[in-house]
Amino acid sequence: MSGRARAEALDAADPLAGFRDRFVTADGGRIYLDGNSLGRLGVDARAGLTAAIDDWGARLVGGWHDWIDLPARAGDELAPLVGASPGELLVCDSVTVNLYKLADAVLTVRPGAVVLAESDFPTDRYVLAGLAARHGREAIDAGSDPSQTLRGCGEVALVALSHVDYRSGALADMRAITAAAHAAGGMMLWDLSHSVGAVAVELERCDADLAVGCTYKYLNAGPGAPGFLYVHTRHQHALRSPIQGWFGQREQFAMGAEYEPAEGITRFLAGTPSVLGIEAVRAGARLVAEAGITALRDKSLGLTALAIDLHDERLAPLGFELATPREPDRRGSHVSLAHPDGWRICRALIERADVVPDFREPDVVRLGMAPLYTRFTDVWDAIERLVRLIDAGEHLASDPTPTRVT
Amino acid sequence: MSGRARAEALDAADPLAGFRDRFVTADGGRIYLDGNSLGRLGVDARAGLTAAIDDWGARLVGGWHDWIDLPARAGDELAPLVGASPGELLVCDSVTVNLYKLADAVLTVRPGAVVLAESDFPTDRYVLAGLAARHGREAIDAGSDPSQTLRGCGEVALVALSHVDYRSGALADMRAITAAAHAAGGMMLWDLSHSVGAVAVELERCDADLAVGCTYKYLNAGPGAPGFLYVHTRHQHALRSPIQGWFGQREQFAMGAEYEPAEGITRFLAGTPSVLGIEAVRAGARLVAEAGITALRDKSLGLTALAIDLHDERLAPLGFELATPREPDRRGSHVSLAHPDGWRICRALIERADVVPDFREPDVVRLGMAPLYTRFTDVWDAIERLVRLIDAGEHLASDPTPTRVT
Repeated sequence: MSGRARAEALDAADPLAGFRDRFVTADGGRIYLDGNSLGRLGVDARAGLTAAIDDWGARLVGGWHDWIDLPARAGDELAPLVGASPGELLVCDSVTVNLYKLADAVLTVRPGAVVLAESDFPTDRYVLAGLAARHGREAIDAGSDPSQTLRGCGEVALVALSHVDYRSGALADMRAITAAAHAAGGMMLWDLSHSVGAVAVELERCDADLAVGCTYKYLNAGPGAPGFLYVHTRHQHALRSPIQGWFGQREQFAMGAEYEPAEGITRFLAGTPSVLGIEAVRAGARLVAEAGITALRDKSLGLTALAIDLHDERLAPLGFELATPREPDRRGSHVSLAHPDGWRICRALIERADVVPDFREPDVVRLGMAPLYTRFTDVWDAIERLVRLIDAGEHLASDPTPTRVT
Repeated sequence: MSGRARAEALDAADPLAGFRDRFVTADGGRIYLDGNSLGRLGVDARAGLTAAIDDWGARLVGGWHDWIDLPARAGDELAPLVGASPGELLVCDSVTVNLYKLADAVLTVRPGAVVLAESDFPTDRYVLAGLAARHGREAIDAGSDPSQTLRGCGEVALVALSHVDYRSGALADMRAITAAAHAAGGMMLWDLSHSVGAVAVELERCDADLAVGCTYKYLNAGPGAPGFLYVHTRHQHALRSPIQGWFGQREQFAMGAEYEPAEGITRFLAGTPSVLGIEAVRAGARLVAEAGITALRDKSLGLTALAIDLHDERLAPLGFELATPREPDRRGSHVSLAHPDGWRICRALIERADVVPDFREPDVVRLGMAPLYTRFTDVWDAIERLVRLIDAGEHLASDPTPTRVT
């Protein structure tokens, strides 16, 4: 079977096909392959948000009796999706602020260098570089083989890396790198932004110490929804957030004179959490749990495999180069295609072919597969439109200078 | 005119009376006097949130073309309400995180002590104490007369105080204290959480350097809505956020190797801002602007004056003591009543009289007047119910141990 029939057969056999109806998809002919940047609006998320708005209106300040522990309750709902236990996660703040809190907490109690990836997502690099400078630590590039790099380092305080690389879609070996970080004396912090909800994550089995992650990608919690943080139970007592906010205080409403961090994960809260934002995260996490992370990962691998096959067959001859690892256990849920005209191709896809990928400097077109709602025929049709567009030279009409905002 | 007729006459003459209909008030007989803790759901806020949810669903990642500068655009809409100029405010993060960012920025570039109020709102005290310790600075209590205290201090880096005190409702003299802070060599940071939207704030006229504030009180943006921050234009270039997030980066989407803070107020952003949260803030700010801060302040003073008169007439004989200044120019928009049985009275009001005030340790019942929707008859009726409740001894049935959550 070849051509579109293959994709149609895969859709017909897809056990998760029905989950697409759980999202708002009034797209017309648009094919959305950017759920790795911003996930879709779920029907349940919309209902959850609407209910939370009405709950605010009706209960007013009395609602806090239920809202006060939302960050931890939502964290407990997320925990199974990342292989963590109840009491180890909070939904709060942004990924950036959470990374700052946890990385600073480690550098305050541990000597040694910070190991990070110079190719990592900008906010990770910027936050970590700032903290390394502030604490007077060396910042070491993890390079292409972090385990190897860690064997050659001196004393290490913290290793902080993305589980799935935002540009290439490469999936890191969490177990091996965590072990190498520990062998070097460091704590291991994983950024799960590009894996949670699409890739099985086993934080505890891999003995990970800390993690942060994003909820508006594969968890579909909406633009700027709160991030999450994870601190393994064994570290919670020894680490303290640099931001001594009232939501992290023991007996918060006693409003005591001195700051005394709460026991447990709560100490990593700062200010008043976004009730609406957290409700959207809960709706997103429940949908992922309902589909099951194993089934989602299977479908994701099927989608990315189809994209890679179609790349080899139809795109490589047009000058594309696959920037994502071919091995299933080494890739996440998006496929990156490098092309010298990547920017113009990306713009033309959006403006002329109604296909939404995204672009990352200097030349990468990313195709994101969100297994809850991306169909195999979406992948096939998108690549068909891409081939036609290039054959017709339509991308040459787009502005060659990157200006986009996400 | 005395008794309820006086309140009725005030309502009849109230030029802002119509604004109550701009809020969801399906309360039955409940009298809500806690808008100083959590404001009501506005009809426009609900519409704005619903539109933002649908906008996410329809535009997906393409929405970022408009959302990307929402923190600054919302800040520009807030600016006139606090006497600031466009380009001086951002709506982002929580009050706690914003206070942390600005206070740390000051301590990084200025030597000297931190002056704060030991009676200030807990998150302010905790954040500032943590930063003072981290930077090795003395933390000095501003006491009851901060201007006087500042005259006796040595070198001061930062003075950080609330404009309206959360317990007493006392309004600080922004101009005099700011001048005293400057005379002591310090920058002045105001927390506007309990004033913005109900009290005229003149940041620039008072020469204030920095400010933070809350949007879910008199701005009615919903539980945990984003806070805001203000940095006077003259300081923006010299100050840097400790949290080097990608939204604060110059040319964010070039995703360059080194962190280079954006010029202007944008450098104080950290992670991805909450689009829904900011839309609710915009709706709240527009409603305050439509009513006009002068009219709101006039009504607020009328409401608190009525409460103070009724205290003197009816509550003082029952053992209450007014904890709020009597002078109009020294009070904000809530009235605090101290009573040895304050906790039980507060509980009984909520549970038996359908009146919602709140309680602050050790003995203060706060009555918050939100001039956009609180009626003069609400104040009269609430105090009538309070008097009856105490006359009947109904408060004696409540649990004497404070346990509440907000």
